[in-house]
Amino acid sequence: MKDLQEILKTVETLFDGERFLYEPKGLYEPIDYTLRLGGKRLRPALLLASCQMMGGDTGLASSAAVGIETFHNFTLLHDDLMDRSPLRRGKPTVWSRWDANTAILSGDTMYALAWRMFLRQPHTHLREILNCFNETAIEVCEGQQYDMDFESRDNVSLDEYMMMIRKKTAVLLAGAMKIGAMYASAQAGDLCHIYDCGINMGLAFQIQDDLLDAYGNQQSFGKPIGQDIRDHKKTYMILRALELSDDAAALKTLYNRGQHNEETVSQILHLYEILGIRQQAEQVIDRLMQAAVNDLQQVSAATEAKKPILDLFATLASRKK
Amino acid sequence: MKDLQEILKTVETLFDGERFLYEPKGLYEPIDYTLRLGGKRLRPALLLASCQMMGGDTGLASSAAVGIETFHNFTLLHDDLMDRSPLRRGKPTVWSRWDANTAILSGDTMYALAWRMFLRQPHTHLREILNCFNETAIEVCEGQQYDMDFESRDNVSLDEYMMMIRKKTAVLLAGAMKIGAMYASAQAGDLCHIYDCGINMGLAFQIQDDLLDAYGNQQSFGKPIGQDIRDHKKTYMILRALELSDDAAALKTLYNRGQHNEETVSQILHLYEILGIRQQAEQVIDRLMQAAVNDLQQVSAATEAKKPILDLFATLASRKK
Repeated sequence: MKDLQEILKTVETLFDGERFLYEPKGLYEPIDYTLRLGGKRLRPALLLASCQMMGGDTGLASSAAVGIETFHNFTLLHDDLMDRSPLRRGKPTVWSRWDANTAILSGDTMYALAWRMFLRQPHTHLREILNCFNETAIEVCEGQQYDMDFESRDNVSLDEYMMMIRKKTAVLLAGAMKIGAMYASAQAGDLCHIYDCGINMGLAFQIQDDLLDAYGNQQSFGKPIGQDIRDHKKTYMILRALELSDDAAALKTLYNRGQHNEETVSQILHLYEILGIRQQAEQVIDRLMQAAVNDLQQVSAATEAKKPILDLFATLASRKK
Repeated sequence: MKDLQEILKTVETLFDGERFLYEPKGLYEPIDYTLRLGGKRLRPALLLASCQMMGGDTGLASSAAVGIETFHNFTLLHDDLMDRSPLRRGKPTVWSRWDANTAILSGDTMYALAWRMFLRQPHTHLREILNCFNETAIEVCEGQQYDMDFESRDNVSLDEYMMMIRKKTAVLLAGAMKIGAMYASAQAGDLCHIYDCGINMGLAFQIQDDLLDAYGNQQSFGKPIGQDIRDHKKTYMILRALELSDDAAALKTLYNRGQHNEETVSQILHLYEILGIRQQAEQVIDRLMQAAVNDLQQVSAATEAKKPILDLFATLASRKK
């Protein structure tokens, strides 16, 4: 049984073994660059940890683990272009280092490379596994569309926001865990609990991301503080603030103004403080993480086998500060 | 045994049954629009015709037929954005009717929808079929990259051009035919001949496309005449002209000038006439089509079973005028 550190090390070794130095270079260099930017490698770690939890051979699931991270990085590459984000993990994004066309086509190719990895290893349940991966991919696209649609709407509810982050963020984490368990040929009931666990953890993870955008350390977070505000993103922070504010109309007008400067960003962050949004976000995150842990307890596997996943959750929770 | 007309009608019926009126509308409307633009539906027709030729049940291959056309339309959607083409089949392209971000994300989703169609139908050789589809997709991306790279290079050879159109155009036509035959569980030798046949036909098809750009009827072709020249595309026409011209350096300078006007476009078209490029392109197309027919003759199937494919080739060849 591998502990969390060993699983994370396995994931790193898998990525060290994957280079994309093919021709034409203009296509593959941005892919290699993107996959070498690092990151938490959360999805492959969850996939392998879930496979191990259900008694599966993680060696058989390792191609899928690399595949799901490759898919995730493809979505980031296209999202960064659509959002015109200059930085990702503190480094220039592909569209800003190369150009928009490179980001489009190298992204498309990364998507196909993710499929290559998923197809590498035969499995009795391969069609079901690929269906799970693909339906997840479609939901991720839908989530990104809602996210963009919400930017130009001024009546987004917290419920709509939760639906959006479920698709944009949570389903891929849940899908990673479910796919890992499918490689272990887990039963339908367990797959259900594992998926629900991933959804709750994913929702917590995204709200924490919103929180870090407002209160994180720019260097460790890799993005400028308050970027969501500048992008007029609908986040847990602003939607909850609108629910609680005495003058929601004025806050809405302030938030949606054409271009933010440092002063208006500070004004909004200050309002979050006054309304106690930070504490409330932390409470919601805690509740969701507890729900994820409860889901995991329903899974028919030994307590010890669940430990790497619980340890991973703890690592994510400590990301708060 | 279905004849070509019946196969084409089957394909249309399949597409009439596929609508994409889901939420969020901003994501799915451009997909539905794109798949309703029509087109020759060449790839699904080849897939089904090839399946039938090898004695397969075309009903089992019909999802894959819709899938390969959906993938093809996804590549057109992203290509049109990268090339900033305003029209496709005489109608506004997605990026010009909506915007660039819509084209990116709706395109990504179309790609995933193509996978949904490929995964719909179980098959003993499903993993091999999906691998063939996916490796083809990767080559198509590589081909598009070479095509874009070639625009800014002034020393592209005809050999390099043939390699590029092989990837960008021919492999998907060849892949469609091979996949159709795989659904019929055809033998490796036959798969090889069928693939080669598709490659030769695909090369002919692309050179004919180059020819039509210079000599076609704008209305039936759906694109403005001479667009390849305006885009500084490397085509069979210009590369052969450079090989034959007395003053290749001057022609190169003329072709690569920053912005073409109607006069310089006419000048280049006139030079093609003088050098007999049109006749030579027609000869190359005929030779490649003959090679495709020879490949098809090697396939171990009844002559009658090959007829729909040969009829389709004849239809394509008559596209010249």
